[in-house]
Amino acid sequence: MPDFPVHVVFPGRIVFVGFGSIGQGVLPLILRHVGVSPDRITIVTAEDAGRQEAQEYGIKFVKQPITQENHAQVLGPLLSTGDFLLNLSVDVSSIALIKLAREKGALYLDTCIEPWPGGYTDQSVSAARRTNYALRESALALRTPGNKGPTAVLTHGANPGMVSHFVKQALLNIAADTGTDAGNPRTREEWAALSHKLGIKVIHIAERDTQVANIPKKLGEFVNTWSVDGFISEGCQPAELGWGTHEKTLPPRGHEFDFGPKCAIYMMQPGAGTRVRTWTPKAGSFHGFLITHGESISIPDYLSHREGGKVVSRPTAHYSYHPCNDAVLSVAEFAGRNWQQQERKRIMNKEIIDGIDELGVLLAGHKKNAYWFGSQLSIEEARKLAPYNSATSLQVCVAVLSGLVWAMENPTQGIVEPDEMDFRRNLEICKPYLGPVVGSYTDWTPLTGRNSIFKEDVDADDPWQFKNVLV
Amino acid sequence: MPDFPVHVVFPGRIVFVGFGSIGQGVLPLILRHVGVSPDRITIVTAEDAGRQEAQEYGIKFVKQPITQENHAQVLGPLLSTGDFLLNLSVDVSSIALIKLAREKGALYLDTCIEPWPGGYTDQSVSAARRTNYALRESALALRTPGNKGPTAVLTHGANPGMVSHFVKQALLNIAADTGTDAGNPRTREEWAALSHKLGIKVIHIAERDTQVANIPKKLGEFVNTWSVDGFISEGCQPAELGWGTHEKTLPPRGHEFDFGPKCAIYMMQPGAGTRVRTWTPKAGSFHGFLITHGESISIPDYLSHREGGKVVSRPTAHYSYHPCNDAVLSVAEFAGRNWQQQERKRIMNKEIIDGIDELGVLLAGHKKNAYWFGSQLSIEEARKLAPYNSATSLQVCVAVLSGLVWAMENPTQGIVEPDEMDFRRNLEICKPYLGPVVGSYTDWTPLTGRNSIFKEDVDADDPWQFKNVLV
Ligand SMILES: NC(=O)c1ccc[n+]([C@@H]2O[C@H](COP(=O)([O-])OP(=O)(O)OC[C@H]3O[C@@H](n4cnc5c(N)ncnc54)[C@H](O)[C@@H]3O)[C@@H](O)[C@H]2O)c1
Ligand SMILES: NC(=O)c1ccc[n+]([C@@H]2O[C@H](COP(=O)([O-])OP(=O)(O)OC[C@H]3O[C@@H](n4cnc5c(N)ncnc54)[C@H](O)[C@@H]3O)[C@@H](O)[C@H]2O)c1
Repeated sequence: MPDFPVHVVFPGRIVFVGFGSIGQGVLPLILRHVGVSPDRITIVTAEDAGRQEAQEYGIKFVKQPITQENHAQVLGPLLSTGDFLLNLSVDVSSIALIKLAREKGALYLDTCIEPWPGGYTDQSVSAARRTNYALRESALALRTPGNKGPTAVLTHGANPGMVSHFVKQALLNIAADTGTDAGNPRTREEWAALSHKLGIKVIHIAERDTQVANIPKKLGEFVNTWSVDGFISEGCQPAELGWGTHEKTLPPRGHEFDFGPKCAIYMMQPGAGTRVRTWTPKAGSFHGFLITHGESISIPDYLSHREGGKVVSRPTAHYSYHPCNDAVLSVAEFAGRNWQQQERKRIMNKEIIDGIDELGVLLAGHKKNAYWFGSQLSIEEARKLAPYNSATSLQVCVAVLSGLVWAMENPTQGIVEPDEMDFRRNLEICKPYLGPVVGSYTDWTPLTGRNSIFKEDVDADDPWQFKNVLV
Repeated sequence: MPDFPVHVVFPGRIVFVGFGSIGQGVLPLILRHVGVSPDRITIVTAEDAGRQEAQEYGIKFVKQPITQENHAQVLGPLLSTGDFLLNLSVDVSSIALIKLAREKGALYLDTCIEPWPGGYTDQSVSAARRTNYALRESALALRTPGNKGPTAVLTHGANPGMVSHFVKQALLNIAADTGTDAGNPRTREEWAALSHKLGIKVIHIAERDTQVANIPKKLGEFVNTWSVDGFISEGCQPAELGWGTHEKTLPPRGHEFDFGPKCAIYMMQPGAGTRVRTWTPKAGSFHGFLITHGESISIPDYLSHREGGKVVSRPTAHYSYHPCNDAVLSVAEFAGRNWQQQERKRIMNKEIIDGIDELGVLLAGHKKNAYWFGSQLSIEEARKLAPYNSATSLQVCVAVLSGLVWAMENPTQGIVEPDEMDFRRNLEICKPYLGPVVGSYTDWTPLTGRNSIFKEDVDADDPWQFKNVLV
């Protein structure tokens, strides 16, 4: 057995809430890289899934769905000062759990900001309030003056999460490759200034999952390489994107926010029904879904460059996700049912026979046009690297691990977003699990190959207008 | 071996042009049901595909791509009065072959009206002229006064083709089920009057192919259950549809024609990039591609009901095609490449392990809302019924057979469309090969389940407006 470095010794208890594809994938990583004994870990989850794995590692497994009513009662006794609440569930309010952790003096990490069930599709709430933008605002509102208190890491999976670190590395690489003096940026202002200096107009979180299985998707079945419920939830939220200062016109059904930092917009349609053009090194150009994500808001907010208090430069930023083929088919079927969920769901795992998850950030508009930086992890390599994982889950799980380690190393940072964390420390922990991590320039733009068989309505003057990106 | 009825004895020669999935599938049916000896059949095709099958049946196989330059020279000597030219190729002009057949006094049948290569995507030709509407006009223009001459059957596969016969059967069934006196319609005018009387507003050719294989589609591969080239060609043509008299507004990028009968419109976008809502009994509601097809124009033209010389009632009609899942993925990839064809192609055949091709017509707007009538042939049953076929090919091949038999039985009809043929005779020949042929009423409309998570811009007053159908 290889010698795994223990990144941090943790004397407290760790409580998992939820133990699905991510929980199951991250547990072995925590046991490998964090100095904590199995008897100090408890899993609280809604189903039996993962019970066997918990048993294998000697971890206490409690099947008890957490609700608005019972969450303090069930989780409260498991948490006190210096413990860790790790939220890897669906259908449990992140806000409620952050509050509870802070009351108890416990550290916290989640991989997205979730509401209680129904919060994403509740038509009695305005679409603007069903966005990640609004969820982020309510999480940030929990900050006390000076942002003190036990560290609570928001939205730290692969994306949102690790991709914020990719963006910083990519900015430094582009600076180096274009002969731009990057300095040594450490503050938000300095990173924003660097992005501005490089002329970054657009950041796509560009992901192409090519994993395929040896059994075909069935009719009435939603198949994915990670949470079906999670993907359906975010896919039904309004499409949202960080809105760059170079953008000339709102997209059809696009709306600005009338609260918060106004760094983003939303569209009155589900992300799973919204397609955008993007590019990754192995896949080339493709259409992804514009699924709303925390990073689409936090990254452009973080990179907003101000002069005289006014934002003068901010990139457009959004997720462009081509999930595995079976998930593309599942979304098509789901759309054909007017967003009524299929009867069955399946998270692909053992049945995966081939493919990679190519996940990275595409930074465009600079001197060398566009640069993708990210991970090209294959299913084969993922299986060699860690048990209970696919390529997709491992990219997420190692980012959960790195965020958790960082929080343990920095336990009094208050409520933090990925962009506010030490990207070098996080990438250092993640890298051994990411397969090939590559940077690649491309001359592709959303105008490449357009007007091939029909005249299209494009903005030929500025390739990186969102108008050109939207399908 | 079961006793197969010989529908017609044919003393002439038969020349196949093209021998792909349809040619290969139809040959055994012709040998079964037409009195013709193998030595009177010749195959002229562009590739080696099917050579072994031809050998097995003792059929002459000539590998010689037909071009604009060589077609008369290569095919001419193979044809004289009373012979049959069966065009099952791609990339060969139907118009040119019809002319040749007529010069020689030979009968003719094809399954779509094709131009010479490049004709579908030639941007130097206006989009309006790249439509099936325009191709149909040029085929009908070959008619001599009184439409005399050897029978040339246009566009007689499953669809276009057999679905025109389904429509007539469906009209009679709806009349019977709504207590409407149908009379005994025989002429175009009588069928149009019946459609008008029943209040038919919309006809979808609604197809859901659920066939799946045991090997996944590869990156850069276009997979389908029938011609990849054929599907790509028609998918790149402008989306077109017969345009009903009840329609209030043209769709975005929709255009009327300024020539011909003006029974249809086209959209300035490829059909493979245009989605429409429809319904079949087994699949329920789904999104199909609005791929242009001959029947979308011939059916509404045929059913145009006139009063005082003016069209007062005509249904909207179009194809709504959900091809097999691997083809849906292939189209998505193709779109992401801006309609640049993938490097590899594969027509699924032996690797199919499950699924049906549910192909029929959905007639809507009448007293009982909507009625689907069609075939639900499974791969299993197709394999039992005929060699060298999938569910998809068999539905096409049996329609080729029935059209060919009808032409042989009616050899002096000139140039005819499916709508002008004897639907009873055709269905009689087809039926044994179609698996379950079912009629099914539904209360589904394109408004069913809408506004589920977002307010949508719909015409609530008239469910069957195309505006509600378009995704
Ligand atoms: N940031 C990222 O990169 C990223 C990536 C993948 C997943 N995620 C998020 O991580 C979370 C987990 O994803 P997953 O793939 O493991 O999901 P999953 O669907 O596989 O598992 C969800 C888990 O939550 C549990 N659960 C459901 N309701 C619960 C309740 N009321 N109380 C307690 N537990 C409950 C389920 O029993 C299950 O164990 C999701 O919110 C997902 O959106 C983030
Ligand atoms: N109406 C319908 O329901 C229906 C259904 C399926 C297919 N079709 C049409 O039938 C035709 C054949 O379909 P398929 O699935 O068999 O296609 P396929 O791609 O399997 O085969 C095409 C055949 O045409 C031959 N060919 C190509 N170029 C040629 C040339 N220049 N000269 C002679 N032969 C040439 C190829 O060698 C091959 O044998 C297509 O036009 C398709 O659009 C119609």
